[in-house]
Amino acid sequence: MKSRKIISLLTLALSLIVFSTASSNERSGLILTKEGIQKIQADLGNIPLFDSTLQLLKNEVDAEIETGIDTPIPKDFSGGYTHQRHKANFFMLQKAGVLFQILEDEKYAVYIRDMLFQYESMYKDLPLHPQTRSYARGKLFWQNLNDSNWLVYAAQGYDAIHDWLSEEERKKLEDNLFRPFADHLSVDTPKFFNRVHNHSTWGVAAVGMIGLAMGDDALIERALYGIPLDLLDLNAKDNDGGFIYSRERKAGFLANLDDPFSPDGYYTEGPYYQRYAMYPFLIFAQALQNARPDLGILKHKDGVLLKAVDVLLNLTNARGEFFPLNDGQKGMSYQNDAVVTALNLAYFYGDQDPRLLSIAQDQGRVLLDDAGYAVAAGIRDGKAKEFKKGSLAYSDGANGDEGGLSLLRRGDEELSLLFKYTAQGLSHGHYDKLSFSLYDEDEILQDYGMSRFVNIGQKGGGNYLPENNSWAKQSIAHNTLVQNKTSHFGGRYELGSKHHSDLRFFDASKENIHVVSAVEENAYPGTVMQRTMAMIKDDEFEKAFVLDLFKASSKTKNNYDLPFYYFGQIVGTNFDYKTPESLVAMGKKNGYQHLFLEARGKASSGAAQFSWMANNKFYTLTTATEQKDELLLARIGANDPEFNLRKDPALIVRRPNAKDTLFASVIEPHGEYNPVSESALNSNSQVAGLVVLQDDDTYTIVSIKTVQGGSRIFVVSNQDVDASTAHNLEIEGKKYSWSGPYHYFAM
Amino acid sequence: MKSRKIISLLTLALSLIVFSTASSNERSGLILTKEGIQKIQADLGNIPLFDSTLQLLKNEVDAEIETGIDTPIPKDFSGGYTHQRHKANFFMLQKAGVLFQILEDEKYAVYIRDMLFQYESMYKDLPLHPQTRSYARGKLFWQNLNDSNWLVYAAQGYDAIHDWLSEEERKKLEDNLFRPFADHLSVDTPKFFNRVHNHSTWGVAAVGMIGLAMGDDALIERALYGIPLDLLDLNAKDNDGGFIYSRERKAGFLANLDDPFSPDGYYTEGPYYQRYAMYPFLIFAQALQNARPDLGILKHKDGVLLKAVDVLLNLTNARGEFFPLNDGQKGMSYQNDAVVTALNLAYFYGDQDPRLLSIAQDQGRVLLDDAGYAVAAGIRDGKAKEFKKGSLAYSDGANGDEGGLSLLRRGDEELSLLFKYTAQGLSHGHYDKLSFSLYDEDEILQDYGMSRFVNIGQKGGGNYLPENNSWAKQSIAHNTLVQNKTSHFGGRYELGSKHHSDLRFFDASKENIHVVSAVEENAYPGTVMQRTMAMIKDDEFEKAFVLDLFKASSKTKNNYDLPFYYFGQIVGTNFDYKTPESLVAMGKKNGYQHLFLEARGKASSGAAQFSWMANNKFYTLTTATEQKDELLLARIGANDPEFNLRKDPALIVRRPNAKDTLFASVIEPHGEYNPVSESALNSNSQVAGLVVLQDDDTYTIVSIKTVQGGSRIFVVSNQDVDASTAHNLEIEGKKYSWSGPYHYFAM
Repeated sequence: MKSRKIISLLTLALSLIVFSTASSNERSGLILTKEGIQKIQADLGNIPLFDSTLQLLKNEVDAEIETGIDTPIPKDFSGGYTHQRHKANFFMLQKAGVLFQILEDEKYAVYIRDMLFQYESMYKDLPLHPQTRSYARGKLFWQNLNDSNWLVYAAQGYDAIHDWLSEEERKKLEDNLFRPFADHLSVDTPKFFNRVHNHSTWGVAAVGMIGLAMGDDALIERALYGIPLDLLDLNAKDNDGGFIYSRERKAGFLANLDDPFSPDGYYTEGPYYQRYAMYPFLIFAQALQNARPDLGILKHKDGVLLKAVDVLLNLTNARGEFFPLNDGQKGMSYQNDAVVTALNLAYFYGDQDPRLLSIAQDQGRVLLDDAGYAVAAGIRDGKAKEFKKGSLAYSDGANGDEGGLSLLRRGDEELSLLFKYTAQGLSHGHYDKLSFSLYDEDEILQDYGMSRFVNIGQKGGGNYLPENNSWAKQSIAHNTLVQNKTSHFGGRYELGSKHHSDLRFFDASKENIHVVSAVEENAYPGTVMQRTMAMIKDDEFEKAFVLDLFKASSKTKNNYDLPFYYFGQIVGTNFDYKTPESLVAMGKKNGYQHLFLEARGKASSGAAQFSWMANNKFYTLTTATEQKDELLLARIGANDPEFNLRKDPALIVRRPNAKDTLFASVIEPHGEYNPVSESALNSNSQVAGLVVLQDDDTYTIVSIKTVQGGSRIFVVSNQDVDASTAHNLEIEGKKYSWSGPYHYFAM
Repeated sequence: MKSRKIISLLTLALSLIVFSTASSNERSGLILTKEGIQKIQADLGNIPLFDSTLQLLKNEVDAEIETGIDTPIPKDFSGGYTHQRHKANFFMLQKAGVLFQILEDEKYAVYIRDMLFQYESMYKDLPLHPQTRSYARGKLFWQNLNDSNWLVYAAQGYDAIHDWLSEEERKKLEDNLFRPFADHLSVDTPKFFNRVHNHSTWGVAAVGMIGLAMGDDALIERALYGIPLDLLDLNAKDNDGGFIYSRERKAGFLANLDDPFSPDGYYTEGPYYQRYAMYPFLIFAQALQNARPDLGILKHKDGVLLKAVDVLLNLTNARGEFFPLNDGQKGMSYQNDAVVTALNLAYFYGDQDPRLLSIAQDQGRVLLDDAGYAVAAGIRDGKAKEFKKGSLAYSDGANGDEGGLSLLRRGDEELSLLFKYTAQGLSHGHYDKLSFSLYDEDEILQDYGMSRFVNIGQKGGGNYLPENNSWAKQSIAHNTLVQNKTSHFGGRYELGSKHHSDLRFFDASKENIHVVSAVEENAYPGTVMQRTMAMIKDDEFEKAFVLDLFKASSKTKNNYDLPFYYFGQIVGTNFDYKTPESLVAMGKKNGYQHLFLEARGKASSGAAQFSWMANNKFYTLTTATEQKDELLLARIGANDPEFNLRKDPALIVRRPNAKDTLFASVIEPHGEYNPVSESALNSNSQVAGLVVLQDDDTYTIVSIKTVQGGSRIFVVSNQDVDASTAHNLEIEGKKYSWSGPYHYFAM
């Protein structure tokens, strides 16, 4: 495997050298090609989505030209004026470049030139940015990451007017601005540049893009392979707490492409960061594709970049918002510009998947280049098809062998369950092995996401808040099992980074039941955790429901907490609980210090039921309980001196002193409330009983009784997960046979 | 005034007697007229909204006919099967009647007849409903209110097949079912029938409708004027805690029309209950209009019934949901069937206001009668115009002299402020004198509404929860001033019912500022409360803002709390606060027992600022503080053993030991957050300072300083509120002159 990869890198490098000399004579456009421009110009006025996007862009740039150019001396963090102004400037450079190329109006070229020369006259004397928080400070911005953003976009603006400028002008800009800028991002700050991390993806794209625009092969090489360095402190960390260097000392664009993406196209930091990284990945890939089509960069690693676009679109809820895995901010969606770019390129360079066009319609805009033209024309020509999101499983890890995540979905009901058994996810990972979240169009059982208000200066400068570590990353903040009130891997990043969960099996081949099962053996040494989740459509239930079997097998006796972070109003319970006079925190550390105990209930019968209402729909959690179990109602918000946390509620199933144990639960959406007709339909659960019939090394078997009198059995094998293995079992005196690791049937 | 009313009642009564004999020969349809039916039949297929509503109705009734008729022995509360079934039945009687009249398909007549005879055979032996909670138990339902619903609808079904039935069938139904049914609702339960209350509106409409359908003048008379009764216990109360009888012993339809509606058409219980009462009011009025057009019932009290429809539509937020005044459940909207009825009748019998048609379009359905036909045809013919909701003031009280409520609105920004200075609002009233709520499309500063989950059986049978009295009605649950931690009128209904607040002035004539001012002199004996609220559009502010001046003048020193029930996430404050380790209730009673204290802050500078974010928009409250003031962050939810309350937050401005004092605040919407682009625009307040320059018996004067350096003055007169009075004042050494009770100007 490793040797194959090295050969492919060599091939790439060789072809690069061969073609780089040829390219210096016939200069190709970085993003917009000459042929593309001709095609677009000929069709202007006949491609509605392209035309309207162009008009919006023109309005925006014209207004900015009217306002005039400002390149203030840098001083602010994100949110402050100088930050926002320089950010707006680099977008303008790129946008004006597009307008100049398509409309051939010189005022855009003049605008770009003048702005670039303002930067040129400022940059050579510019010290490091005065804010010192970053491990890799920029010059225009407080961190190199943002300086890289600047260069990725500015390179496109420069490229657009490259041939329009005089040779003297070009030389001045390249010598005084672009080359020193690229050097600062790379050779001056190897800790920033020589990483496998979304920061470095921006860094290498920046250096590579300007290298391509300038025709500077040394910069291009640096971008592709990183800086040759011998002495690296492998334990160095950035200010998010992530390791700086990759264990194998890899760096450069190709390493950043190889490592964080699994062969399926899942990005190990999760979709929120994937979305952020996709722009530099793809814009640089597009530029390489135009300048060096022979490299086949988009075919690299079996076309992983284009696959990744499909993953990104699939990792969204019914509103197109990314599931907030790891440090993800809720609300980020496929409406983001980076996803417009990603989608357009995937359509153009991929196999013109018509499902992408329906998302592009929803995005309402396209790239103003060859790719965007293809998308707009495809939509105009009525080729769009619905993007149906079904059940699927993605692997994690560069080789696809570090766990992964699954989605169980019933698109007909907008019910989506996301189940996570990934690797750590670099510095943005949470300690949430085998956690899940559930959506019924809206969030029903939530993943908290991160504790940060990006770019809202009043909240800790818009950066990660202390509660991101003390709460959001901790295991108890997730819908997963917590042993002895400690987080997985003790909440230690170094340890978590060494391990990953493993998929046992995933099966979405049947109409009525989709199942996934995964195991985690390292989060708590001496304890094996295994979770099997099924989404089941059964005639005796109004809607599809979820069966959740969380099995823990330990060498020692432990106390377990299994939380469910529901939203909304409690409708009823079948157990008694007491609410305390005053609310106190549930612990001192590991996230427990942020939970108030609002009520304490005792498991009374064999199955505890908890019903709630959210978004005018009813939900019931039925969980098989043991006599010593407690049912705790909790609320986030203790020890939150700046009100940084959302005060969301949870039900926690607490089981003390257990060695080998099973948490079996049914999560059941049912009925609805109409506040206009004031009718409550089907507000009661259909589950009359939930019993664990067997739970040992061989099988876990549970029985569900329905209110209508039905009886269902779910069996999962705890050993053989082969789909073809035959199983024969006697359950409650009756013999059953089937093939594969699980079976669901009426008794 | 009184004598005029008596004469008008006499005229009505006389004309009724004259024409009632005529009507026994030429029977007119109760709701659908013969001419109407002909017109509709001729136009079927050409009136889209009518046609689609008819098709929906047909599908629904056909499905029910398929299912078969069930008239179970009554036993359940609302939410239970027998309740729901009988409720579905009466709707079917009415709906099948409409279909029979329009489509002339006998299967609908047969269905109605068969169902009515099933009721006939059951009713004569039916005891009172077994549930004993109601002060006026029904037979089919647990309360007469629901039995009245049944008869209002059943009368329409009966009327539709009246001429199709044999005389013998009619006699049997009338003798064994309808007449005893009407008697049970009236002479058997005068406490229910002889009231001025929405219950009685249903009762009299029921008796009147069946009277009209049967041609029974005695029943019609009973419906119009109530039962002649001498001995009434004037202090009797119903199970909602309301007085049974009106002080003036009035009863019947006309009294119910006269008393609860103000001359403007505001219904004293608020829009949630008005919506509920509108159906019987209008359906009976329509029937009277058809049977006795000479009575001019729709012109009664200057056409108050039709005016009331306009009020109802104006008392909605941007989504068409009623402001949850008093015991109102949030989410109820003009999509409710009763409002479809009300709107259609108002359009047809009123002056064909084209603004109503745009609401009807949004409702998406029409009545299947002459009125609905007119609405559907109007829409088809393109007559619909936008229903713009502006600033307005409505009076409360039968004579319009018992306070009222105002709406300040900037439709261009969807900013709506509702300010309440009404009478008590009968048994559904809250102790919330001079309270307000603010909407910026969504709720920004909320009125809690009621503590009840209507028809959700698991929550206290769907009835009012204990927390409705202990929390929702209390003063501290509202955005108004609380003195010494007690509720207005000591939370005593008898006392509250004797008083009302008074409007001082309302002015929405200016473009940039709309102002309302009201006073309350009885809520706390010895203390006069006066609140002036202005919605101001000023160039130095991005959006319109609210200025709130709450003045208390007392004979004694008191402790004051002024809460603001915001939603969302705290962004920042300019004052320090401490969060306690454990949360305890803020008091023992008057609603304080339901509030947890989450943080305690001290006023530091002259103006405290509190910023929050909700629905991705920013808001800042700036309030002028005195040194001893405290700023308390609170959360609802203490002493809530069944989790009946929503855990919503509040900021409470606490001022101890004050005699005459002013709470001056600016409530300022600003900026927005885009989670997709992650940009925070204008996240900071524009208010740099807020100072009380003067506050005495003559004037209250405040100054607002802006971040841009601007200075604004708002003056309100505390004496003369005449619009033409000239005022001359020296403020900070400069002389100013203006006319009218307030003035806003740049200094």
